[in-house]
Amino acid sequence: MPTSIVMKGAMQAYIDAFNAGDAAAVAALFADEATIEDPVGGQIRTGKAVILEFYEQNVARGFKLVLDAPIRGSHGNAAAMAFTATDGVIQVRVIDVMSFDEAGKFTSMRAYFGPEDILT
Amino acid sequence: MPTSIVMKGAMQAYIDAFNAGDAAAVAALFADEATIEDPVGGQIRTGKAVILEFYEQNVARGFKLVLDAPIRGSHGNAAAMAFTATDGVIQVRVIDVMSFDEAGKFTSMRAYFGPEDILT
Repeated sequence: MPTSIVMKGAMQAYIDAFNAGDAAAVAALFADEATIEDPVGGQIRTGKAVILEFYEQNVARGFKLVLDAPIRGSHGNAAAMAFTATDGVIQVRVIDVMSFDEAGKFTSMRAYFGPEDILT
Repeated sequence: MPTSIVMKGAMQAYIDAFNAGDAAAVAALFADEATIEDPVGGQIRTGKAVILEFYEQNVARGFKLVLDAPIRGSHGNAAAMAFTATDGVIQVRVIDVMSFDEAGKFTSMRAYFGPEDILT
């Protein structure tokens, strides 16, 4: 199990790569068979190719992520962070929860936000 | 499935009841067979009686919860919130994720924080 510090480092790398517009670097943080559920309750996307496509689309929209509070670790193989995503038009208030494999790669990402967490 | 607004209301009621020192009111927000995993990666506690005891202990320690950002809903049966818990001695940076039943009661609570999220 990766340490909480390692998991937080991967979460910060996710934020940094996303904000640099580097979808490939974001996708590289995921394990091969990882899943993303964004938003929670929506479609579950599986696998590196689909995940890369998802981030290419979001990066292309110009979204930037700003942490609302320090990233949280856990005593297990998961970490969580609250942030606001904005593309200059809308703001989306999100909490992401990632689970991790032994190598410190994301095996899942779940993005918690509801319809009213999108502000225009 | 409860609406995101209903789920957020229950999350806020959790904060308010906790801060009022009312462990019974906190426990009343949970379904009978609910589970709590606090912290994530630690022991999983199941059932109303055990949950009530857990909150009686935490309330007795004088912990107060302050939201770090607005509560997030989802498009499913879950919501999440980032807060800081303090008893005047330590601060614990936490993200709680709750899942819900049809009646809007918590079926699970998972508290994400690692060893280094506890500040003295």
